[in-house]
Amino acid sequence: MEKISADALPLTINSSEKQETVCIFGTGDFGRSLGLKMLQCGYTIVFGTRNPQMSSLLPNGAEVLSHSEAAQKSSIIIIAIHREHYDFLTELTEVLKGKILVDISNNLKINQYPESNAEYLAQLVPGSHVVKAFNTISAWALQSGALDANRQVFVCGNDSKAKQRVMDIVRSLGLTPLDKGSLMAASEIENYPLQLFPMWRVPLYLSAVLCVFFFCYCVIRDVIYPYIYEKKDETFRMAISIPNRICPIAALTLLALVYLPGVIAAILQLYRGTKYRRFPDWLDRWMLCRKQLGLVALGFAFLHVLFTLVIPIRYYVRWRLRNMTITQVTTNKDNPFSTSTAWLNDSYLALGILGFSLFVLLGITSLPSVSNIVNWREFRFVQSKLGYLTLILCTAHTLVYGGKRFLSPSILRWYLPSAYVLALIIPCTVLVLKFILIMPCIDKTLTRIRQGWERNSKISKSALNGKTDI
Amino acid sequence: MEKISADALPLTINSSEKQETVCIFGTGDFGRSLGLKMLQCGYTIVFGTRNPQMSSLLPNGAEVLSHSEAAQKSSIIIIAIHREHYDFLTELTEVLKGKILVDISNNLKINQYPESNAEYLAQLVPGSHVVKAFNTISAWALQSGALDANRQVFVCGNDSKAKQRVMDIVRSLGLTPLDKGSLMAASEIENYPLQLFPMWRVPLYLSAVLCVFFFCYCVIRDVIYPYIYEKKDETFRMAISIPNRICPIAALTLLALVYLPGVIAAILQLYRGTKYRRFPDWLDRWMLCRKQLGLVALGFAFLHVLFTLVIPIRYYVRWRLRNMTITQVTTNKDNPFSTSTAWLNDSYLALGILGFSLFVLLGITSLPSVSNIVNWREFRFVQSKLGYLTLILCTAHTLVYGGKRFLSPSILRWYLPSAYVLALIIPCTVLVLKFILIMPCIDKTLTRIRQGWERNSKISKSALNGKTDI
Amino acid sequence: MEKISADALPLTINSSEKQETVCIFGTGDFGRSLGLKMLQCGYTIVFGTRNPQMSSLLPNGAEVLSHSEAAQKSSIIIIAIHREHYDFLTELTEVLKGKILVDISNNLKINQYPESNAEYLAQLVPGSHVVKAFNTISAWALQSGALDANRQVFVCGNDSKAKQRVMDIVRSLGLTPLDKGSLMAASEIENYPLQLFPMWRVPLYLSAVLCVFFFCYCVIRDVIYPYIYEKKDETFRMAISIPNRICPIAALTLLALVYLPGVIAAILQLYRGTKYRRFPDWLDRWMLCRKQLGLVALGFAFLHVLFTLVIPIRYYVRWRLRNMTITQVTTNKDNPFSTSTAWLNDSYLALGILGFSLFVLLGITSLPSVSNIVNWREFRFVQSKLGYLTLILCTAHTLVYGGKRFLSPSILRWYLPSAYVLALIIPCTVLVLKFILIMPCIDKTLTRIRQGWERNSKISKSALNGKTDI
Repeated sequence: MEKISADALPLTINSSEKQETVCIFGTGDFGRSLGLKMLQCGYTIVFGTRNPQMSSLLPNGAEVLSHSEAAQKSSIIIIAIHREHYDFLTELTEVLKGKILVDISNNLKINQYPESNAEYLAQLVPGSHVVKAFNTISAWALQSGALDANRQVFVCGNDSKAKQRVMDIVRSLGLTPLDKGSLMAASEIENYPLQLFPMWRVPLYLSAVLCVFFFCYCVIRDVIYPYIYEKKDETFRMAISIPNRICPIAALTLLALVYLPGVIAAILQLYRGTKYRRFPDWLDRWMLCRKQLGLVALGFAFLHVLFTLVIPIRYYVRWRLRNMTITQVTTNKDNPFSTSTAWLNDSYLALGILGFSLFVLLGITSLPSVSNIVNWREFRFVQSKLGYLTLILCTAHTLVYGGKRFLSPSILRWYLPSAYVLALIIPCTVLVLKFILIMPCIDKTLTRIRQGWERNSKISKSALNGKTDI
Repeated sequence: MEKISADALPLTINSSEKQETVCIFGTGDFGRSLGLKMLQCGYTIVFGTRNPQMSSLLPNGAEVLSHSEAAQKSSIIIIAIHREHYDFLTELTEVLKGKILVDISNNLKINQYPESNAEYLAQLVPGSHVVKAFNTISAWALQSGALDANRQVFVCGNDSKAKQRVMDIVRSLGLTPLDKGSLMAASEIENYPLQLFPMWRVPLYLSAVLCVFFFCYCVIRDVIYPYIYEKKDETFRMAISIPNRICPIAALTLLALVYLPGVIAAILQLYRGTKYRRFPDWLDRWMLCRKQLGLVALGFAFLHVLFTLVIPIRYYVRWRLRNMTITQVTTNKDNPFSTSTAWLNDSYLALGILGFSLFVLLGITSLPSVSNIVNWREFRFVQSKLGYLTLILCTAHTLVYGGKRFLSPSILRWYLPSAYVLALIIPCTVLVLKFILIMPCIDKTLTRIRQGWERNSKISKSALNGKTDI
Repeated sequence: MEKISADALPLTINSSEKQETVCIFGTGDFGRSLGLKMLQCGYTIVFGTRNPQMSSLLPNGAEVLSHSEAAQKSSIIIIAIHREHYDFLTELTEVLKGKILVDISNNLKINQYPESNAEYLAQLVPGSHVVKAFNTISAWALQSGALDANRQVFVCGNDSKAKQRVMDIVRSLGLTPLDKGSLMAASEIENYPLQLFPMWRVPLYLSAVLCVFFFCYCVIRDVIYPYIYEKKDETFRMAISIPNRICPIAALTLLALVYLPGVIAAILQLYRGTKYRRFPDWLDRWMLCRKQLGLVALGFAFLHVLFTLVIPIRYYVRWRLRNMTITQVTTNKDNPFSTSTAWLNDSYLALGILGFSLFVLLGITSLPSVSNIVNWREFRFVQSKLGYLTLILCTAHTLVYGGKRFLSPSILRWYLPSAYVLALIIPCTVLVLKFILIMPCIDKTLTRIRQGWERNSKISKSALNGKTDI
């Protein structure tokens, strides 16, 4: 059975030969889980604890000693203790001199303490080499072997040899070490496991607000209005028809919001005449979550596509089409083919298909592994050129969808226009502003500003400088 | 022409300036291919062979000498010889002292020998620095330049300087070295190229079994039954209608099987009162292939979506719909619109669309590059919370699809219920068990167990400990 | 507000504590942007310039000195100067001795100079340690913080300590350093940011040519022909019907072109009787862009799927179907169900769905992060076995689509066959050739050649050798 699990877990070392001795301070859950895992990988484990008698809980095969005795047995000591209890380590300074202390602690809140736990530990035990590691791994995952998530272990420390030895241990447990540089990175590594999609919050809240607003809007127009005026029960529209209005609107609006901050930034730079002043905070944060906005928009577009493609298998649609045919037969009315309707209908579908395909392409290039193999020039080409093309296609799709009835007053219900008309406001604004910005005279100034030119400074010198320096 | 291939292969060094001399022992296929490639990259190559006269096969520009003469020319020696013939190297121990020996050998079976080839080599030639590398690259790929697959070369060795020099050679050939730590990793590196999707076998066998069973089941119900009782030839159903039954059933069952082992593990932990005992082997292996199970399920779901969306363009469906209309016209029967049918039909479609979209999202987050940028908390949120939501939506989709005819006896044929009824068994079991497990009283105990508490041990001490240690 | 941006940018160090002093030569745009970013990350920055008085443009907090004064302040000097102006550094050789010079320059064209800028710098200032870095990052991105693209910074250099220090700086700016080995890699790193999808050009040009040709072909057959002979205005077909002919044709042709070079290479090897001779250049380049060809083909297949699935919601299709029903009712003609038509129709759809699903699977495995976790054997299995299966399914899909009318002369218009008939030429050729190549007698010879055997050499010795060497 051992063999099966050996080839099941690629590149994990399961050899049972004895490796070096590692000491673990603390017998909490993570300490025990890590100890058990390391025992299974062939390490000799010594636990250091205040109360060496209480050893019943610890994995079989591990030795349990007092802190100072345990520390003497090994040159690597894993500190599996909460930061609040680090103080007692000061008494062991002599014993810990020159040893490698591995800080695996996490906090409960982001930036809970002024300095990171690892840096605090390094201050407490000056002669030791502190390495931060393992804090991003869950004890439960170590225990159950269910590490399908993230096998990456961030490692940082000031002593490169100590770091190297810890990285070797990480590798031998079947995990992937990632060198994050000096101990200064520890605070970031400690904050990392506490985050829950920080960049996704604004886009998700925003899309929730959009969805709720347009849902109510559509319910009023499409369910309540006909109920009041025609006594028709159209509530079933809430399952597919109305979601299929909300999704394209949300997708188009969010996609336009991806390109709006870039336009605002350009206007701001033109107004200020320099690129060396920071943008306002809200604009900075908006620009940082553009990728997420775009991906949420892609999600809505995907839903829109699915909702649209199931139209012909819906009971309501089949019933209506059948009724139309029957009415036509019984009334014996002629229904001549209208080429212009065919053109409008087909081109709105074709525009939507092309827009969606380009959108999917943008989504694929924002996958981390894909964006890592394109260079800056290629990324800008895809995200900016193809991105605007997507926005143009999707806006055109909506405009042609409106078609002839776009401004027809008969479409108003309680003075409310169709929902898609509202969806066009932001995209059209962005496209018009962008169109103005790429006009030669404005574009030239903007390019110069982005190359470092400043309107209010000694232009001649700057220009002179710009010629020789990068 | 050289230039074109230079910018065609990003970051490959094709410079022709002379670099260091590298010696290759052995003139087999891989030795020659590697030698040719290194010659093209500017290295001076010396082949060491038993029979230096036989040089006609070797790439032009390479020198051919006896083993000991060749070894003296270079400090890096690539051992392109099968493990069975390593013995003669013992005679050269003196010449090879302090040199870097690169072991590139592979075996024919996983874990063929007790120790890895590289470790065996290190024992044979004690004074040398053995580095394992290049064994994951195919000679054919090196030769044809068709390295679009895996450019990664796993490197391991005990001497970090020797490893660094080999990694530099790897990079200069346009490949990506990946440090796998000490020579202990060699056996894993040697097993790596022999694997053929080890984790995918169980999910694929399982889905094959599911498909065959449900195919037979549906053929009996939908083809043989009507043929016997109504003399109707319904064989054409085997092309789309029956696959479109099998796919959703397989998808839903496999998706439920992703979450079943977690539920079983929780029950086992509750029963045992501890998390420090290993799960049975079958459960361990089941948990390790959950990701693969989920992805196969997603594949079936994808097929189901496509099979469903082509329904309206099928000849059979168009023919039936036309006939229904004609019958209605000729019999002059009324067909009033049923809001409840519209509701059922639309909500089953909407549930399916939402479930599929979430499923695609789960699939995207299990891409290696995406799961590498989310932390443990985020991964658990997506895979557990969103995963259960997907399971609930897909189960609801199937339940609503059944709708009113769910328990109607008229649907039975030869006492066999519709296939989708069978598909509901496992998902409903999982959901019911999970619902019981998240009830506060049970969830509390489980959480304590997962935080390291043990029912049968000195609880007070453990609790005391758990407060200070991690 | 600081806190929000801190957790918004994972693993970026925003600490304001003073780190080491870094000197920047040159006050151009990139120099200033980099200086500002480093100041924000806590570094002390000294600018070295010809004209220290002109400091108004530089970021607040940076010191400005003459070149030699600035160089003395720091052991790391970033050379933000164009290569053409490097000469003056020779005067500073004494001051720069032992210091780390970071070359961040780019050129305007690929391979503009015989040696890379970094190597040229190393020749100019012999005693210094030159490290190439930062040239792949855009100043605008550094400034605006919008580094959602590529956070990777390629670093190379001959001195490993110098490289390590530069990599620490890169990490502290929130970027990811990637060690590219010695300074020999500099020319590749300098060419990297100048590329614009070099591997995609041939596939994209090729597909553009295919599209234009088949568009004209289809317009002649489907729009001009009926206009001339039947005076019907069918121009609306150009929106969806004709694209939905072009897409599958382009997809199938390009997919076949992915497998054609492999077949040609095999024939060439059989003819030559050796694998140790280079392929002609055009074949080499064709083989290198197979992945891109396949992905473009997948894009066309995706469009084909979408164009096909919208068929039932098109106005033209609904109008035609309704008319058919009405005609049938009014003429009172019978329309019996044809099982063979149902079989043909359903199996062509099913083949298309299976082919497309496998195609998507191939596309997913060619994502960099996925292809990195499969080994060579697995990659060949997917790309070769599954790839040919995809080609077979898609070709069969097209053949069955043709069905009975395949060779019917009534389908000819102006002696032009349907477009899909032309699309079958290359795929069928590839499949026939492949079928011949895998016949045992030929396959055996080919396998021996690929294992290093040569027809025209002393076969016995080679065989003897092949037994002991790799």
